[in-house]
Amino acid sequence: MALNEEALQALKTELLDELVKEDPSKSQLAERLAEIRSADIGEVLEELIEEDEELSAALTVLDILSTERAANVLGYLPKESQLEVVGELSDSQVLKLLEEMGSDERADLFNRLGEDRREALLRRMAHQEREDLKRLASYEEGTAGAIMTSDYVAIASGMTVSQAMMRVRQTAPDAETVYQLYVLDSDGHLIGTMSLRQLMVARPGALVDDIMIKDVIKIPVDKAQEEVARIVARYDLLALPVVDADGRMVGIVTHDDAMDVAESEATEDIHKGMSIGQLEDGVSRVPLWSLYRKRVFWLVLLVFANLFSGAGIAYFEETIAAQVALVFFLPLLIGSGGNAGAQAATLMVRGMATGDVGVKDWSKMLGRELLVAGSLGLTMAIAVAPIGIFRGGEAVAIIVALSMVTIVLFGSLIGMCLPFVLERFKVDPATASAPLVTTLIDATGVLIYFSIATAILAGV
Amino acid sequence: MALNEEALQALKTELLDELVKEDPSKSQLAERLAEIRSADIGEVLEELIEEDEELSAALTVLDILSTERAANVLGYLPKESQLEVVGELSDSQVLKLLEEMGSDERADLFNRLGEDRREALLRRMAHQEREDLKRLASYEEGTAGAIMTSDYVAIASGMTVSQAMMRVRQTAPDAETVYQLYVLDSDGHLIGTMSLRQLMVARPGALVDDIMIKDVIKIPVDKAQEEVARIVARYDLLALPVVDADGRMVGIVTHDDAMDVAESEATEDIHKGMSIGQLEDGVSRVPLWSLYRKRVFWLVLLVFANLFSGAGIAYFEETIAAQVALVFFLPLLIGSGGNAGAQAATLMVRGMATGDVGVKDWSKMLGRELLVAGSLGLTMAIAVAPIGIFRGGEAVAIIVALSMVTIVLFGSLIGMCLPFVLERFKVDPATASAPLVTTLIDATGVLIYFSIATAILAGV
Repeated sequence: MALNEEALQALKTELLDELVKEDPSKSQLAERLAEIRSADIGEVLEELIEEDEELSAALTVLDILSTERAANVLGYLPKESQLEVVGELSDSQVLKLLEEMGSDERADLFNRLGEDRREALLRRMAHQEREDLKRLASYEEGTAGAIMTSDYVAIASGMTVSQAMMRVRQTAPDAETVYQLYVLDSDGHLIGTMSLRQLMVARPGALVDDIMIKDVIKIPVDKAQEEVARIVARYDLLALPVVDADGRMVGIVTHDDAMDVAESEATEDIHKGMSIGQLEDGVSRVPLWSLYRKRVFWLVLLVFANLFSGAGIAYFEETIAAQVALVFFLPLLIGSGGNAGAQAATLMVRGMATGDVGVKDWSKMLGRELLVAGSLGLTMAIAVAPIGIFRGGEAVAIIVALSMVTIVLFGSLIGMCLPFVLERFKVDPATASAPLVTTLIDATGVLIYFSIATAILAGV
Repeated sequence: MALNEEALQALKTELLDELVKEDPSKSQLAERLAEIRSADIGEVLEELIEEDEELSAALTVLDILSTERAANVLGYLPKESQLEVVGELSDSQVLKLLEEMGSDERADLFNRLGEDRREALLRRMAHQEREDLKRLASYEEGTAGAIMTSDYVAIASGMTVSQAMMRVRQTAPDAETVYQLYVLDSDGHLIGTMSLRQLMVARPGALVDDIMIKDVIKIPVDKAQEEVARIVARYDLLALPVVDADGRMVGIVTHDDAMDVAESEATEDIHKGMSIGQLEDGVSRVPLWSLYRKRVFWLVLLVFANLFSGAGIAYFEETIAAQVALVFFLPLLIGSGGNAGAQAATLMVRGMATGDVGVKDWSKMLGRELLVAGSLGLTMAIAVAPIGIFRGGEAVAIIVALSMVTIVLFGSLIGMCLPFVLERFKVDPATASAPLVTTLIDATGVLIYFSIATAILAGV
């Protein structure tokens, strides 16, 4: 059974109680830890490490575990915590841990170490290992190369089924997955793939070249990681092979890593939708200075954008002076337009991210939004009209109701179209965030409201 | 290679060209279709079905494919399109397709058919098949039961490794995954699990009971589907077994279905963040009436909430009359507070959804937000102060700068705390949407701004 929040807290207390004893019984602790999953130990250690004084407790736990298990647990820690742990260990301890980590996690951790530490570690590695690590560590963050592992099962073209099966058994302990196999020619080009399931039901003497699927779904090493997640999800893959520019196989991304990417991409999109830049860690751990920087940019920019709304109000000062009751409805009208517009923008941005909406759907979406936003505007106008009569009489009611329909309709169309426009100019459509859309609509709303008011009041 | 947008369009044109011929060559089409992945055929059919007049072309394509392949392609279609296709087929055609679908997709499609159609189909099924379908179709939408499949490999307790291996070979064609095996006692209780990898390296004569992992990660059938996705992601599982209240195994959820759930949950969260209700389909396909209903509720509610801002303005009419320049800064100040508050709320809601932030982290988050929001408020105050001097002199500048710091700080704290308060009262924290938070802060902002203005102007 997976551990829940309370069980994790109890485990943490239990570990701490044992560890603060004068002479903690390591064998007893080891026995207890053996029953607990690496992901759960990782969670407890993460909390211990965050509370600075308990870092040594976390180190003791890692020390008690076998190197393989410790490497596994380390892989579940957030990157900041990994660095804190590694900072307390000797080079030879770190080397042992690195050796046991998956090649993708190894390269990831290695990349975050200081220059000196990296040099010291590289000097002590075997040639092959060093080259492998350097290669994996060289891919740019956010690309397929940066999240792939080189621990996959490669089958040489020309092998028989039983030879391939032998190879699977030999590689089983090290490979990230043995359930999807890749056939390479003598130059390392990826020429086919097969599942272990296919291999198991094939005739032992058959050639892998005859049973493999030749049309392999693969991805170039420099493609964006969200593309990896999209392809894995779309074709329900266990693993996606990664190839270099010449079609040579360089690694795989497994389904669990693709799922992690999809989650962090969703988080990034959600944050972007509120004009927050990409955080390098969870919100509870990211340094405050970084959190400030990722939030301040658009906030300050939008302060200036909001000046247009103010200028709009100043321009209509006479109209306002003639009917002060109008100001009462200002927040309501521009707020409503902003909300409807932010909804429309969000629907499009997410639709584009999931592949549900494409650029070619623009006109269809425009037609749909016209109908929906028109109905929304009418409903809201009907809701607000009685208050208009109550506060300022019939003329104000008509002004407010008319403005509501127009502002909601305009706001929704601005919100809907902006992501398409951005995409057209190769800007991430997610830049059409709620704050940006709301600010644009605020300014438009002020103009619409007071123009309608001026016209109607002049007519009265 | 996965198909991109252009390749898909070309394929669609090609298929249509062939299909509109007087006498389309079915064998040629069949050959062409054999080279294309089911997911890609599904994508093309989806477009054909959406353009109503091409529904018959889609049906012809399905007819050309083998039943197994057609069932597979059908599984990739959105639910609405599935229903359109099935509406055109005879009962016996539907029965054949249902038989070839995965048990989870079968139950899903069945559940969406009309009462009459369901009865007609059930009458024609074998007893076992009927009971199985009725059971799977009975789980409430959004639960583990509703997304699980019953096509898993069950191993009887007491079997040897070689017997288990035989069982895997036999079940291979039907099971969703053969890579994770589940050991059941004679009453069907789930008592252990092992991977195919473990089985392959075990001694053939060993008992499965001796090599299986007894502490199985599993989930009750009535748990929410997002919990399934969370556990699969957390423990990097290939499949998560689902058990009933007595611990009897009833199905599995595979990694690819868990990934789909995670994606649709992310979409739901993103929409909720903008006060949009849960859509039953993609934004490009959901009926307009439904889209209207899912957007209108909060929009109208917030119209009334916005009245408080209006009332606030009305209350301070005298202050405004004394210094009309103040109105110029109103949209800017409440807009900034709303933006900062929406950011803070979004960071907490997403942190809670991913498990990064727990209720117990409340005080830590409050401390962090105080620092960050204070800095943001100061920065924005410095940005806006010169404009204050320019528009209304020193007094206005002081009022505006002071208000900016206070509103941004208050707004951020409201935004940050609201998700925790909601969670505390068992309301989904995602209800703390950007529009709700912004509206709350608008009203607070008006009060803060004009209170500060009244106080300072009275002192001048």
